[in-house]
Amino acid sequence: MQALVIDNGVHFDSGFARPVIKPGEALIKTVLAGICATDLELLHGYANFQGVPGHEFVGVVEVADNPSLIGQRVVGEINCPCKSCATCLRGDTNHCPNRLALGIRHKNGVFADYFTLPQANLHIVPAGISDRQAVFTEPLAAALEILEQVHIAPGDTVVVLGDGRLGILIAQVLALTGCDLVVVGRHPSKWGLLLNKSIKVCLAKDLEEGYLAKVVVECSGSSGGFTQARKLVQPKGYLVLKSTFNSDTLVDLSSLVVDEISVIGSRCGPFSTALRLLASGNVEVEEMIGGEFHLKNGVEAFKKAKEKGVVKILLKP
Amino acid sequence: MQALVIDNGVHFDSGFARPVIKPGEALIKTVLAGICATDLELLHGYANFQGVPGHEFVGVVEVADNPSLIGQRVVGEINCPCKSCATCLRGDTNHCPNRLALGIRHKNGVFADYFTLPQANLHIVPAGISDRQAVFTEPLAAALEILEQVHIAPGDTVVVLGDGRLGILIAQVLALTGCDLVVVGRHPSKWGLLLNKSIKVCLAKDLEEGYLAKVVVECSGSSGGFTQARKLVQPKGYLVLKSTFNSDTLVDLSSLVVDEISVIGSRCGPFSTALRLLASGNVEVEEMIGGEFHLKNGVEAFKKAKEKGVVKILLKP
Repeated sequence: MQALVIDNGVHFDSGFARPVIKPGEALIKTVLAGICATDLELLHGYANFQGVPGHEFVGVVEVADNPSLIGQRVVGEINCPCKSCATCLRGDTNHCPNRLALGIRHKNGVFADYFTLPQANLHIVPAGISDRQAVFTEPLAAALEILEQVHIAPGDTVVVLGDGRLGILIAQVLALTGCDLVVVGRHPSKWGLLLNKSIKVCLAKDLEEGYLAKVVVECSGSSGGFTQARKLVQPKGYLVLKSTFNSDTLVDLSSLVVDEISVIGSRCGPFSTALRLLASGNVEVEEMIGGEFHLKNGVEAFKKAKEKGVVKILLKP
Repeated sequence: MQALVIDNGVHFDSGFARPVIKPGEALIKTVLAGICATDLELLHGYANFQGVPGHEFVGVVEVADNPSLIGQRVVGEINCPCKSCATCLRGDTNHCPNRLALGIRHKNGVFADYFTLPQANLHIVPAGISDRQAVFTEPLAAALEILEQVHIAPGDTVVVLGDGRLGILIAQVLALTGCDLVVVGRHPSKWGLLLNKSIKVCLAKDLEEGYLAKVVVECSGSSGGFTQARKLVQPKGYLVLKSTFNSDTLVDLSSLVVDEISVIGSRCGPFSTALRLLASGNVEVEEMIGGEFHLKNGVEAFKKAKEKGVVKILLKP
């Protein structure tokens, strides 16, 4: 089958072996896939991954034990837990230490004609949601995870630091709480959707001098983002971390103690909520799409995804 | 008056000027004071402090506008807020950016015959609490702040990393929740009080291989403690930071994201709760006292407070 493969850089392979289905898994044909910041970080060594990347998808089930799944259009949770360790048994399967993660950790991903996932991970996509919407389910769920972790009230001040793919989804989700939100970004060419939704957005230099927010979400995707975000959090406030990258960061831990800041790591979120939100029309994604590439042009697609001002790049087999 | 003074090291001064009372302040005669890890850090440049250190005290009010305070035995909150900035007006006076902090920030402290504090900061000590108990009110309040910030349920696993002054108070307070607690320390000579209270305590090397807790409190007082504490936190768990020190720490922020860890800075806590707890007898402090020094032997007292195996050193004028 066709696949993109990471192995000292990324290349297209027209003869990659089809995945073998393990017990409980379904074989899924990729319909549409999205390139995410994590995929770009994998190229820089993050998670030490080799194989087929990709974890944002909408696909159609071709093979499954459960006959009601066959032929269904699905999205799917990316973590494949062992279901028998202490972490799984206390219900936190997303953090199973033995887990595989689709296109990130010991499991080939969706930038291919076919891939496999446990049937339990799949969510059927309602008919009212298009393929180009459904492919945003995984990052939208990650955005929603913030509200699973932190109570953002209508009166709260919030900064989203980052106007990339995830930042624009996060801003849309948090704006629904009614909070006093500002997105601090770097690429005005990406701001159309936010401005259309009356979400405030500015460059860091245009933020009011000394501005502090109760909640700051760091989704700039760079290690330098932490220091910038930290300066924007008011005492007793929350700094939500979304960026992953392959380096450590120097942190003034004492200042976190003195200011009683909570730094909250935030990752994967609830798929069913994300599908509900896409169906509601309250989150718009169409304008975020910067291009659709055939898998065989995947290397070019990765380059495009890295460009400033480009939002979501899609791949299709 | 007599005072200890930090100014390139610490020295005793028998002729230090008495403090001048500002509007709203009381003049307090020091009865007993405690040396805390922060005082030792001030010597290493923390907070860039010069002047009289000391913020743990019990004293007697000699001068005050409020006649009901005069002659009373008091303890006092250490932060002196401006009460007019945005932070104060939203009720978070402890984090006022213009605040003075007793013996830490632009205000002389209690290692002297006399000091001043706003009358609003003072709490009268009930008769049933001895001076040697009352001097622990401030660090006990800091221990209680953890429970103001994190809900620790009886079924939760908790590690307190550090068997110093604050660690032993924190362990006593958290044990009252009924949680599954273990203190990880370095100085078995300090463990008598914990063992008497049936609180588990061990060396790091004797902790079960791969042990993870839902809540880890880092109060080792060293920058290396963060890395050790981080390894002990289970996914979705809480890492409470209590240590302050004068250096930055390299942190793997991506692992906080992947494991969805909350890192929570924790500082000053509720004095009235601490006094209630001391009165109840549920927290024992007498055994924690490693010696009582006259102020004129303060330099020696600081040296003693730094020794391994020594817990709380008290000073009296």
